[in-house]
Amino acid sequence: MSFTIQNVLIPDGESYKTVNVQIQDDRILAIAPNLEVIGTAIEGSHQLLLPGFVNAHTHSSEMWQRGIIPPTPLELWIAELYKFTPLDPAQAYLSAVGTAVETLMTGGTCVVDHLVLIPGQELETIAAAERAYRSVGIRAFIAPLIQDKALSAGIPTGGDEVKHSEDVPTTQAVLDLVQTAVEQFHRPDEGIEIMVAPTGIQLCSDALFAGCIELSDRYDLNRHAHLLETKAQQLLAQEKYGCSAVQHLKEIGFLSPRTSLAHCVWLDDREIEILAETRSTVVHNPLSNLRLGSGIAPILKYRQAGVNVSFGCDGSASNDSQDLLEAIKIGSILHNVTDFDYQYWITPRQAVDMASLGGATGLNRADQFGTLEVGKKADLVLYDLKSLSLLPRTDPIGLLVLGRPVNVVSYAWVNGKQVISDHEICNVSVNDLKEKLFEQSQWSPKRKSAAISKTEARYRSVMGLSERLS
Amino acid sequence: MSFTIQNVLIPDGESYKTVNVQIQDDRILAIAPNLEVIGTAIEGSHQLLLPGFVNAHTHSSEMWQRGIIPPTPLELWIAELYKFTPLDPAQAYLSAVGTAVETLMTGGTCVVDHLVLIPGQELETIAAAERAYRSVGIRAFIAPLIQDKALSAGIPTGGDEVKHSEDVPTTQAVLDLVQTAVEQFHRPDEGIEIMVAPTGIQLCSDALFAGCIELSDRYDLNRHAHLLETKAQQLLAQEKYGCSAVQHLKEIGFLSPRTSLAHCVWLDDREIEILAETRSTVVHNPLSNLRLGSGIAPILKYRQAGVNVSFGCDGSASNDSQDLLEAIKIGSILHNVTDFDYQYWITPRQAVDMASLGGATGLNRADQFGTLEVGKKADLVLYDLKSLSLLPRTDPIGLLVLGRPVNVVSYAWVNGKQVISDHEICNVSVNDLKEKLFEQSQWSPKRKSAAISKTEARYRSVMGLSERLS
Repeated sequence: MSFTIQNVLIPDGESYKTVNVQIQDDRILAIAPNLEVIGTAIEGSHQLLLPGFVNAHTHSSEMWQRGIIPPTPLELWIAELYKFTPLDPAQAYLSAVGTAVETLMTGGTCVVDHLVLIPGQELETIAAAERAYRSVGIRAFIAPLIQDKALSAGIPTGGDEVKHSEDVPTTQAVLDLVQTAVEQFHRPDEGIEIMVAPTGIQLCSDALFAGCIELSDRYDLNRHAHLLETKAQQLLAQEKYGCSAVQHLKEIGFLSPRTSLAHCVWLDDREIEILAETRSTVVHNPLSNLRLGSGIAPILKYRQAGVNVSFGCDGSASNDSQDLLEAIKIGSILHNVTDFDYQYWITPRQAVDMASLGGATGLNRADQFGTLEVGKKADLVLYDLKSLSLLPRTDPIGLLVLGRPVNVVSYAWVNGKQVISDHEICNVSVNDLKEKLFEQSQWSPKRKSAAISKTEARYRSVMGLSERLS
Repeated sequence: MSFTIQNVLIPDGESYKTVNVQIQDDRILAIAPNLEVIGTAIEGSHQLLLPGFVNAHTHSSEMWQRGIIPPTPLELWIAELYKFTPLDPAQAYLSAVGTAVETLMTGGTCVVDHLVLIPGQELETIAAAERAYRSVGIRAFIAPLIQDKALSAGIPTGGDEVKHSEDVPTTQAVLDLVQTAVEQFHRPDEGIEIMVAPTGIQLCSDALFAGCIELSDRYDLNRHAHLLETKAQQLLAQEKYGCSAVQHLKEIGFLSPRTSLAHCVWLDDREIEILAETRSTVVHNPLSNLRLGSGIAPILKYRQAGVNVSFGCDGSASNDSQDLLEAIKIGSILHNVTDFDYQYWITPRQAVDMASLGGATGLNRADQFGTLEVGKKADLVLYDLKSLSLLPRTDPIGLLVLGRPVNVVSYAWVNGKQVISDHEICNVSVNDLKEKLFEQSQWSPKRKSAAISKTEARYRSVMGLSERLS
């Protein structure tokens, strides 16, 4: 299968140029003005072509709870999240389809799904997500979210003796599950990869990390985890290790050029150096960090230290959307209030590079995708520059990143295969998706659980918050 | 003209209820379940009805420069903005139409346009904006942006002798212009009002403020100004007055229940008290404050002090969009990182109240619009709850505020007149708007001017920034 995108605008240094782009099979064959058309011709006039972005951290099944969890910090929010998490793999399928659709419609061609597993149906959950991503045609890194501690262990004890539930799987059972998932679903050539993805230091033993490292080395798998999302986790790391979480992860060998770490809000300068030394990647989830009040990740410091940074939407219960362009915009401009010196502020072009090449680098695949280059995978997105939200004509990338684009993706391809055509998703029915999401849910604004209040007293005490008003 | 919205969801305490809403002429006649249909029936099933929001601070003509000004602080950004500001009232018309359309499509039924006036064609600019807002049918408060100092006077001197251009209008000429605008265009009954709107302390003499206060009293006009958007303005106020800007504005009598103040980023606790005492309104423009690196306005403190707060998009060259739902989302969640105590965080329902009733209050019209109440103006918006971005069904207002809604406004009315029907703008052709914006602009990513560099050395010195790299 070949096709040629004609007369399309692409970035060229600080400006743009108009070219034709030939694609053969899954790769970019040539990029130059006036190239002959091979295969199908796609008219690219008044459109901007960019490499697809990476939604470098999300949890697809959270889509079922978007819009409903009240404004609370992570440690309380997550109790509520788990209380109502979907328990049917058919739901996991639909939310993965929804996540893929929203990611594609906002410029993403690749998703990292830190997938919450349904207890007792772990492999079925992974199978459902894998089927969803294959159906839509998005490139997917499925990162089964694993842990071997109870959820309550994620809150610092403040020195108190705290009992946690013992209803957790053994470390070996968790590792066996990942190995089975790798054998069944890890197919890099087909655009589906499994990652080793411990939740983070807050819920995982060193033995679990060690097992993940071993699997990563044995099967050449990327590594993913949450890292220091909240101040509570910073306190917890000191309680657990007597040193910083980053120092500990370095010592046990988890950090590497194929390690991407979601959030990284509470790192100090020495910890930032460690990420740079180990060539680890920070996945910035600005909307989630604001929504949960986690803090503002020191992204300008990461960039100045040479740490690779990419963008994620995070799960839809903490954002509450999978709009990658929104994450890119807010993840760029948010940091202007952290440094008066504007020469370090992220420009729209830098933001685009972070979202594409930065995303690919974090997945150790910068040689495969993330730039418009001959020989790279054809993971490509066309933006319609005649959309109202991208008018009047000024600077296409400035409008795309700093504006609020609405339905601007006109065409997209993953691995050379078309996934969006004329602003519409190609391979699944979005109307069908909407109908199913509607039918399988109900308005529940007064949903109440004891989940938050059970944890609240300890959380407020450890965080030094005074008693709650009425 | 009458109509009835049937079977529609409206907020009810912490929950929702399904009602019929009768509208007669420009007012809400009745709200109750199972009311008989009067006039045209509008089917409201699976839709949410809210009072229209107020886009409480923008500059419509900035739409011509959205996406193009590089990431720089206000004091440099504004030099670039003025260098390329449109000079044809026909452009002012189109950008006002664009501003109205984007505001309406994202839940706003009222706009406050702090309108940049074309030199020598000031009244023609106001006339163009007025015609645009009447054409689209949005409620508009036109606030001609006036000043009697040169732009360079907006940067602190740092004690140096600085010469400013003398090419500025006299104070009396500026005031005469506003008076003429009031006589020609101020028609509250028709949904068009003129405001007195000095740029702010940075560019206006006390005599200009005094003249504005006099006009405001004489014609019952609302008052609007920028206030302490940047740290530089805080320094400047100390240089000019030897006291804080807020203290000075209080002393000269500008603050009042009909005064709304854009930004309010750099206020201390005593200044916040003054805003509360004078019942002034803060207009929060979160995207602009981030984009320009101005800072995070202390919105949670305002709310705790009892200061009314509403939301604005600010002009499209500092945002770069007129998506009010985006301003509401970011303006809510941004503040979660400023206070660990989540009991003060803004909930989605509070955000909706701020955007509607808070907006109306800031315009001294809380008795007229901003809530769903019998007798209030029918400034109403219906949201389509079957849109993908508002699914699955959880909490409609949570989804609307915390999600990223795409094209969700299905119907809207201003003063009882329909302005959106079935997701489409009724009274102007959006295709025509797009064509004109396209034709009357050209891609200019390499646009260069001396505007920024002329001011840069002084700005960096006053702000204590080291010499620029490279």
